[in-house]
Amino acid sequence: MPLINRLAIIGVGLIGGSLARILREKGEVGEVVGIGRGKANLERAVELGVIDRYAHDPAEGVSGADMVFLATPVCTIADIVKTIAPSLSPGCIITDGGSVKGDIVRACEPLVPAGCHFVGGHPIAGTENSGVEASFATLYQGRRCIITPTEHTDRGALDKVVRMWQLAGSNVVQMDVEKHDRVVAAISHLPHMVAYSLVNAVGEYDGCDENILKYSAGGFRDFTRIASSDPVMWRDIALQNRDSILEMMDLFADYYARLRALVACGDGAAIERFFASSKEHRDGIVNQAALPSVKEES
Amino acid sequence: MPLINRLAIIGVGLIGGSLARILREKGEVGEVVGIGRGKANLERAVELGVIDRYAHDPAEGVSGADMVFLATPVCTIADIVKTIAPSLSPGCIITDGGSVKGDIVRACEPLVPAGCHFVGGHPIAGTENSGVEASFATLYQGRRCIITPTEHTDRGALDKVVRMWQLAGSNVVQMDVEKHDRVVAAISHLPHMVAYSLVNAVGEYDGCDENILKYSAGGFRDFTRIASSDPVMWRDIALQNRDSILEMMDLFADYYARLRALVACGDGAAIERFFASSKEHRDGIVNQAALPSVKEES
Repeated sequence: MPLINRLAIIGVGLIGGSLARILREKGEVGEVVGIGRGKANLERAVELGVIDRYAHDPAEGVSGADMVFLATPVCTIADIVKTIAPSLSPGCIITDGGSVKGDIVRACEPLVPAGCHFVGGHPIAGTENSGVEASFATLYQGRRCIITPTEHTDRGALDKVVRMWQLAGSNVVQMDVEKHDRVVAAISHLPHMVAYSLVNAVGEYDGCDENILKYSAGGFRDFTRIASSDPVMWRDIALQNRDSILEMMDLFADYYARLRALVACGDGAAIERFFASSKEHRDGIVNQAALPSVKEES
Repeated sequence: MPLINRLAIIGVGLIGGSLARILREKGEVGEVVGIGRGKANLERAVELGVIDRYAHDPAEGVSGADMVFLATPVCTIADIVKTIAPSLSPGCIITDGGSVKGDIVRACEPLVPAGCHFVGGHPIAGTENSGVEASFATLYQGRRCIITPTEHTDRGALDKVVRMWQLAGSNVVQMDVEKHDRVVAAISHLPHMVAYSLVNAVGEYDGCDENILKYSAGGFRDFTRIASSDPVMWRDIALQNRDSILEMMDLFADYYARLRALVACGDGAAIERFFASSKEHRDGIVNQAALPSVKEES
């Protein structure tokens, strides 16, 4: 018997499509209903066998589903939950893949009718591509997925969401929403703020009478790849995870100011210690990443 | 007739070895003498056919050379030029591959005896590997090489160094040392300062009772790859290019503070503009990089 009888996926792109693919491949879902606005993408999803059928109207699409997965931009999730709430079948579980959890979980929990359950989630996976064409069954294999239960979370619903992500191949970790938002602010949102600032600073530097970005080599391009990320998506993240992002931005600014002071006074020994400490941290995560993923499972 | 009769390479690693390989491959060098301290590396260089013979003593090794290429750490270059100066043959050209030019060129020009010539250079190429084993003939293919002549530079010596790098496949650009140091501070040194600071900040964050680096995914790892760079090498660069690095660090800090203010006041439209501007700059360099390299040649 499959884990899920009818799965409704709102937003059939890389994230939603990849979840559907792996659950179908494993025989853990009876039927998949895709919900979205773009007809061409949804028809392609049917052709590819990612979904069985689709609906444009979320309220219609979630009818009869025992699991709803929201894979839409973070700022749309609460509104969609509000829209679908009256149409949810008893016992239905709603979960999401949003990269910010505090605002979403606080907004969604009270919107879900009695007998239905909201469980916040965040699979830490992705590629630079989007749309259902880009989805693939192994996207979540060995990647972390953070689930953020609260004191209101139904235990059975939580277990089922955890199980769903484990079946997708993820290493599931549970933490509270505040910790989640700090962790992603540090490892994802802060690097984006830094990269966007760096590229603007260098790109607008006017001390050389020409755009010096043209001298950039592979290192600069690799380092700044994330500055090519979607401005609208990142605007929404910056607004939704503001407090944690500001905390991490200030933390970075402290370290950066410390390094600036060391460079300004030419303290070679302290500069070397600063760099060596960073290299040690960085090499540590790479070595950890090289461990078999099963060891990371908690 | 080859461009160079006897090439002495001080520091037979990735940079020096790759230059020797391509010049030999093109028949543009008569003999290559490797100079260094590590016997095993130099013997391996002979076995690989990168050099013909080697010497441990720089003064002995440069004897009879018409071109000397210094591919050693930036802080060692002036001392080595001082050491070899009395042993240089008349007409010998000394050039280097150091990633900082102001301090090096100012120190080396007066050290070179009359009739010999110093020309500062900086091939913008590299990989994460080091040692002669890592060298390969196409390292410089299509990459930029910045040559930094001064008012004292001999025209014939300059032409020969430019020709050497063009033969190696580089797109050679000439600029004054101050501009060079600003450009590399912006596109290379600043990103390193930022990456080292970021990894230290996140790695030492103590608000979650555990090391949150363990949650980092591929994006963080890619972004911080340069924080695994050699601390000693980067200490020397920070000391040697201090003024330009401080200028660029302050420029970055201005943009970063501006973004922080936008996030703090939740100005979504301005945040989006900031990100979109950055994306435009970043996409611009990637598109430029995709042009055939011959178009970039100046």
